[in-house]
Amino acid sequence: MTDFFKGIPQIIYEGPQTDNEFAFRHYNPDELVMEKSMKDHLRFACAYWHSLAWPGGDPFGGQTFERPWFGDTMELARLKADTAFDMFQILDVPFFCFHDADVRPEGANYAENTRNLEAIVEYFGEKMEATGLQLLWGTANLFSHRRFMAGAATNPDPEVFAFSAATIKSCMDATHKLGGQNYVLWGGREGYETLLNTDMGRERAQAGAMLQMVVDYKHKIGFDGTILIEPKPQEPTKHQYDYDVATVYGFLKDFGLEGEVKVNIEQGHAILAGHSFEHELALARELGILGSIDMNRNDYQSGWDTDQFPNNVPEMALAFYEILRAGGFTTGGTNFDAKLRRQSLDPEDLILAHVGGMDACAAGLKAAAAMLEDGKLEAAREERYAGWDSEAGKALLSSDLASIEKQVREKDINPLPRSGRQERLENLVNRYL
Amino acid sequence: MTDFFKGIPQIIYEGPQTDNEFAFRHYNPDELVMEKSMKDHLRFACAYWHSLAWPGGDPFGGQTFERPWFGDTMELARLKADTAFDMFQILDVPFFCFHDADVRPEGANYAENTRNLEAIVEYFGEKMEATGLQLLWGTANLFSHRRFMAGAATNPDPEVFAFSAATIKSCMDATHKLGGQNYVLWGGREGYETLLNTDMGRERAQAGAMLQMVVDYKHKIGFDGTILIEPKPQEPTKHQYDYDVATVYGFLKDFGLEGEVKVNIEQGHAILAGHSFEHELALARELGILGSIDMNRNDYQSGWDTDQFPNNVPEMALAFYEILRAGGFTTGGTNFDAKLRRQSLDPEDLILAHVGGMDACAAGLKAAAAMLEDGKLEAAREERYAGWDSEAGKALLSSDLASIEKQVREKDINPLPRSGRQERLENLVNRYL
Amino acid sequence: MTDFFKGIPQIIYEGPQTDNEFAFRHYNPDELVMEKSMKDHLRFACAYWHSLAWPGGDPFGGQTFERPWFGDTMELARLKADTAFDMFQILDVPFFCFHDADVRPEGANYAENTRNLEAIVEYFGEKMEATGLQLLWGTANLFSHRRFMAGAATNPDPEVFAFSAATIKSCMDATHKLGGQNYVLWGGREGYETLLNTDMGRERAQAGAMLQMVVDYKHKIGFDGTILIEPKPQEPTKHQYDYDVATVYGFLKDFGLEGEVKVNIEQGHAILAGHSFEHELALARELGILGSIDMNRNDYQSGWDTDQFPNNVPEMALAFYEILRAGGFTTGGTNFDAKLRRQSLDPEDLILAHVGGMDACAAGLKAAAAMLEDGKLEAAREERYAGWDSEAGKALLSSDLASIEKQVREKDINPLPRSGRQERLENLVNRYL
Amino acid sequence: MTDFFKGIPQIIYEGPQTDNEFAFRHYNPDELVMEKSMKDHLRFACAYWHSLAWPGGDPFGGQTFERPWFGDTMELARLKADTAFDMFQILDVPFFCFHDADVRPEGANYAENTRNLEAIVEYFGEKMEATGLQLLWGTANLFSHRRFMAGAATNPDPEVFAFSAATIKSCMDATHKLGGQNYVLWGGREGYETLLNTDMGRERAQAGAMLQMVVDYKHKIGFDGTILIEPKPQEPTKHQYDYDVATVYGFLKDFGLEGEVKVNIEQGHAILAGHSFEHELALARELGILGSIDMNRNDYQSGWDTDQFPNNVPEMALAFYEILRAGGFTTGGTNFDAKLRRQSLDPEDLILAHVGGMDACAAGLKAAAAMLEDGKLEAAREERYAGWDSEAGKALLSSDLASIEKQVREKDINPLPRSGRQERLENLVNRYL
Repeated sequence: MTDFFKGIPQIIYEGPQTDNEFAFRHYNPDELVMEKSMKDHLRFACAYWHSLAWPGGDPFGGQTFERPWFGDTMELARLKADTAFDMFQILDVPFFCFHDADVRPEGANYAENTRNLEAIVEYFGEKMEATGLQLLWGTANLFSHRRFMAGAATNPDPEVFAFSAATIKSCMDATHKLGGQNYVLWGGREGYETLLNTDMGRERAQAGAMLQMVVDYKHKIGFDGTILIEPKPQEPTKHQYDYDVATVYGFLKDFGLEGEVKVNIEQGHAILAGHSFEHELALARELGILGSIDMNRNDYQSGWDTDQFPNNVPEMALAFYEILRAGGFTTGGTNFDAKLRRQSLDPEDLILAHVGGMDACAAGLKAAAAMLEDGKLEAAREERYAGWDSEAGKALLSSDLASIEKQVREKDINPLPRSGRQERLENLVNRYL
Repeated sequence: MTDFFKGIPQIIYEGPQTDNEFAFRHYNPDELVMEKSMKDHLRFACAYWHSLAWPGGDPFGGQTFERPWFGDTMELARLKADTAFDMFQILDVPFFCFHDADVRPEGANYAENTRNLEAIVEYFGEKMEATGLQLLWGTANLFSHRRFMAGAATNPDPEVFAFSAATIKSCMDATHKLGGQNYVLWGGREGYETLLNTDMGRERAQAGAMLQMVVDYKHKIGFDGTILIEPKPQEPTKHQYDYDVATVYGFLKDFGLEGEVKVNIEQGHAILAGHSFEHELALARELGILGSIDMNRNDYQSGWDTDQFPNNVPEMALAFYEILRAGGFTTGGTNFDAKLRRQSLDPEDLILAHVGGMDACAAGLKAAAAMLEDGKLEAAREERYAGWDSEAGKALLSSDLASIEKQVREKDINPLPRSGRQERLENLVNRYL
Repeated sequence: MTDFFKGIPQIIYEGPQTDNEFAFRHYNPDELVMEKSMKDHLRFACAYWHSLAWPGGDPFGGQTFERPWFGDTMELARLKADTAFDMFQILDVPFFCFHDADVRPEGANYAENTRNLEAIVEYFGEKMEATGLQLLWGTANLFSHRRFMAGAATNPDPEVFAFSAATIKSCMDATHKLGGQNYVLWGGREGYETLLNTDMGRERAQAGAMLQMVVDYKHKIGFDGTILIEPKPQEPTKHQYDYDVATVYGFLKDFGLEGEVKVNIEQGHAILAGHSFEHELALARELGILGSIDMNRNDYQSGWDTDQFPNNVPEMALAFYEILRAGGFTTGGTNFDAKLRRQSLDPEDLILAHVGGMDACAAGLKAAAAMLEDGKLEAAREERYAGWDSEAGKALLSSDLASIEKQVREKDINPLPRSGRQERLENLVNRYL
Repeated sequence: MTDFFKGIPQIIYEGPQTDNEFAFRHYNPDELVMEKSMKDHLRFACAYWHSLAWPGGDPFGGQTFERPWFGDTMELARLKADTAFDMFQILDVPFFCFHDADVRPEGANYAENTRNLEAIVEYFGEKMEATGLQLLWGTANLFSHRRFMAGAATNPDPEVFAFSAATIKSCMDATHKLGGQNYVLWGGREGYETLLNTDMGRERAQAGAMLQMVVDYKHKIGFDGTILIEPKPQEPTKHQYDYDVATVYGFLKDFGLEGEVKVNIEQGHAILAGHSFEHELALARELGILGSIDMNRNDYQSGWDTDQFPNNVPEMALAFYEILRAGGFTTGGTNFDAKLRRQSLDPEDLILAHVGGMDACAAGLKAAAAMLEDGKLEAAREERYAGWDSEAGKALLSSDLASIEKQVREKDINPLPRSGRQERLENLVNRYL
């Protein structure tokens, strides 16, 4: 153990009545929920970037955190990794996630970046071996360095495309080597600041070509994880091409990749796109592209990505309800893409923020399972659409306007509305919480 | 002429210096812009619903307008039509648009609705013949009547689907008969209020089936106009399936209809979806589905559809710039889906609001044409992407990650960012205004 | 009993485990919470307008509800009142609230309006006598009729000011006669649509004069209830003068009325103004003007007043925590300014929506009380500011820049930041839920 | 001259027809508008922070700009000042503005900060003497350093209050010494992240005490500039106490400082608070607290402070119309609180962004003056309120509810609404553009 978390105990489940801040009140890893352990349902992951690499800055202020591993050497990168694994173990999460730039010092060029990455991947490998920790996903940071300011795949400069492609290769290699279960693409700079200097047609084609190469490379190296796109509407870029789930789906269809690529949905990104988290989850489920989630909360009244730890259990319940309806995660999981408030300086804060988030998810999962097992919601929904299961209902969908019109005229079809019962169903949901 | 507009003169072009409120300052129908008359570029249409049918209510107050044609008889419907055509002629617009419910009294059932509609279509036909007015598009109102409260095509009750299909047929027939150039589908109730009572998968399938029937019926009757979907993210419904252009595109691809259906883009709807109008136009152009526009402005700071007459010329210029870059309208046009403020009670207000909106569009069009003809913006954009036209650039798009990575390593590709020059380009745009 | 709610039982408390939809799970009227009954803490009221008078329309659709009392006669107004009191009794709420326009038919002029109001007030008086129901507050609807389209007190036409003043008098008389505990002013049309036609200085002065007259009249007639202003930022009006609590406070200070008038805070209005509900409550408490609340929820992602029944208990807990910290209600209470979704057509929906809302409030109240009684949050807050209780801390506030600067220099004051512990406190709150 | 702007010419007025990017098309400093030169109307200032000190970072990416003066030594601070004054002269702006942290290296403590500041103030003094440049305002940066993370005046730690007070003193001294015309307070951290750890009552009292000390110190040292508060609703802080103009006004009234302090209104901050810029200007004018403006534009669809250079002339016209109606600036001016997009790397971009912004303001000013001189808008507004100038209208405001009610009854006052003519007035505004 490093010194950073000294004095902080291993977090274990003590149940709802505990007074102990450093204990789970809802997350009980081996407890069965719908015949699967909570651990296997939730598949929690910590995000390296927010917890280990973020200095606490915001647009109007600099670093607030003082971490012993901040700095740009391989030695500090290893100290950071040591602390990271301490944290993962204290929290008993089975997974973690990283960008290349989170884990290795920035090099002077591609070759040095890759050497640094490979060294730290080696180090991770040993630690994963020793601890049983697993990699939920890896990804390339193609947005922080100034070379990416005008995009990575969608850059007007083909050399940036090339640099990005090489970097993605190195990160896919690293993810593959570490047995990662998914590889994620978040296009934080894939979009535009102003249409005035943008050729949207070219940029779309570039993005499509890059995605095809990623899929091809996956198959070439035998990586059997899932390729995931993470939608976000804007920020940092004024408009990002992967706006939301529906937009990503259209893009995948356009390039014929809807069978190869899924989505990693973040609550905060959903909200910034004007959707509820459960909307994005339900839509991805219906489109067959639900992959994984980035769990956080976003202040509905702050117009940027606040990436807060989740704490509203009723919201979690609605989210996990959609995930359970999709059959749960396969390669995906629940990654805390959440950061401490920049005033939360203490090591305890970092642990307890995760504890609270994990408990909120666990409580939500249990409520969602109860909703499904009870079946009242499903029954109400099925009853509402029952007409479509009749012969007449089924026939309608393959009919034509003229025939239907004839029917309407002949039978004087003049339907009366029926109550949608929204409030009753909302009351029902509250019973499980 | 009816009495309603008594004393209001025919609006003609008098140029920017005129002091006459009742004159165009920018819209000069026969003036050539990029070798086409302004009339043929802009293809202005008045919207029957806002101008003739809207009583001035809002969620906290009732009717403010007192129009002699308000009421539910065929006689009043004809008086409404008479006044409408007076207005179209005073404004010298070439087109108008309508929903069935705007133009005919509501009947007790489908048959009566259709009889009423057919009678008024007959009446329209005579008036169009007499005046040369044309129909830009027709559409069915499948959202105001209580039977549609839970959706039309996407209703849980198949009878509502049937009633909707029949109504669409009658409206397509009407549009076809009147030589309409497009047929529009706006799904104001196609979406959900709460996921709790909604089966999104079924509803999507229902919407797809209905759209397929519409396309089939178009071909069956030989209607050679364009089928248009009008995206809107929400309002009245909490979530609408046709959220924005990208969402509609994904939907069309899913049902294989992207070659059959285009979009009718409204500025206000774009804004409510978090996009600029020009974004939606540019995206539709790149996807090959740009059809027509609903012109209005939306208060950026009111979170609902304010449907105001457009008045900000710089915004119009950016919009028409994207339309001109797409080659201009074919069957589409510029429909004022804009309504008077409910305090603007006088007949003069109705005329002058259109005059101001038409002038704003005309001024925007002229600025957009100047931008294109000058070519400085295009040149700057092309220069920015010039690297992609080189052999190396072109080769990149059909390469693969491993080969590119090798290149990056070998040539130590380490690109430096170049200025995006946004402010210079914004200054440039201001020169044409 | 009227027929409307036939078959719906009296709602009683059955506890969290009940399966009965028609029972309270948390609201137990006589249960003591912090030594006061829940009934006296919460002081629930039903809103006549949404539940009895609203037809279910929205900006894109008309009436969906079909109520036997809809219409414009005194007889129907009495049927409406009968049904209202049935509902109040089924729900066992102690209070109700109304606008004049909710309860009486619209007359042809002021005199007829007032006659109608007086007749129904008489009728209410008998029913209140018989049932023990009380009036939480009365108010005048100065926004629905077209005469108010440009404002009531702030209208450019002094005759509208006069009509409004007379109407307020009649509503204050009615409220006084019925023993109302507050009188509310909501300025839905007091604001502007466009600055171009608005004299903000005059309108402010008019609003101040009217408020002064209201306060004077209260004293004249010996009404000992509280005068309340209800802030809202916009909708229906583009900008409303009573934007939020802080704005109302500045206005009261300007006219020297901060000791005479308090605020009625609505969750939905707080959200539309960019604030959390608890912010507005805490601010009003600190400014000494917290009066009463309008309880609902607003969809954070719909930009208009959605007025939904509350259902998120964690949000309720934070709200009642601020109310309890203010010492609880005196003349104020918890009015459900919430309306059914327009698809919720059935009488059961109306009852159950209130049941769910009352339970959400009750659960929130209990959690808030537990938070306060436990004292951990208060202790953490006090510890955080403890430095200000030291002699040095106290002295600082009455010092001056030059003296303080001397101290900073001499003692080399160079403070280090301390953790704000936000996530720990959020976890703590979740313990009480 | 330093090398940075080498090759960039002095910007002079060449008129609307010029093809020269490096020339003013509208801003003609000595041209008279309403009998005052444009220079004296607009009183342009450059903001040191954005133009000289900002590295181009955003929440997802680091520095993009590479400026020769970046670094933390006094020598570099002087190079920065040299470049700054080069820029001011190239642009021919009469004023500049700065925070202490923009102009001096960060020291280890208050004493070193102040020594550094004094040295640079000395250097500024010489340069101002040599060039005629003036200081529009100075201010203290009490938000970037981690010590201010929980507030300056409103910090839970009295030592931070003390440090802040000392720093304000040093900045007021600097501003006074340089003949600054105003002193600004922006409370970027004066607010809260979560109510859970916040004592709003204490924090308000602390803020009031600090403001009183600032006013006292102003009088003590004989500074005859204006003290200005700059409202902003949020960002970086979740809620900031100086939310908007109305909120600041209530705060000033509470502490009796409404005669001593005015507001510095920023377009972007107005928008983030849900207001139009012109609303905030008009309100401040009516309340007698309009001081100065921070000119920029904010993307209406990005929920954070985008601080872009203004370019929409119609918006500028409405803003300067309100400023002219207030009698124009006295000590205030037009400060470009605007930053380059982070992709605009070149020295030319920095100059041209200002040129475009100055031209947009100048064009707006000229249009606003034309509107006022023509008088049609004023006439329409006066006509609308004319009833209030009658004897009866005047009497109404000092009457009482009972007397007015008697009048309404006796005269059967039943006012009819009149058109508000919004679209006509909007058309009218477009004539002057």
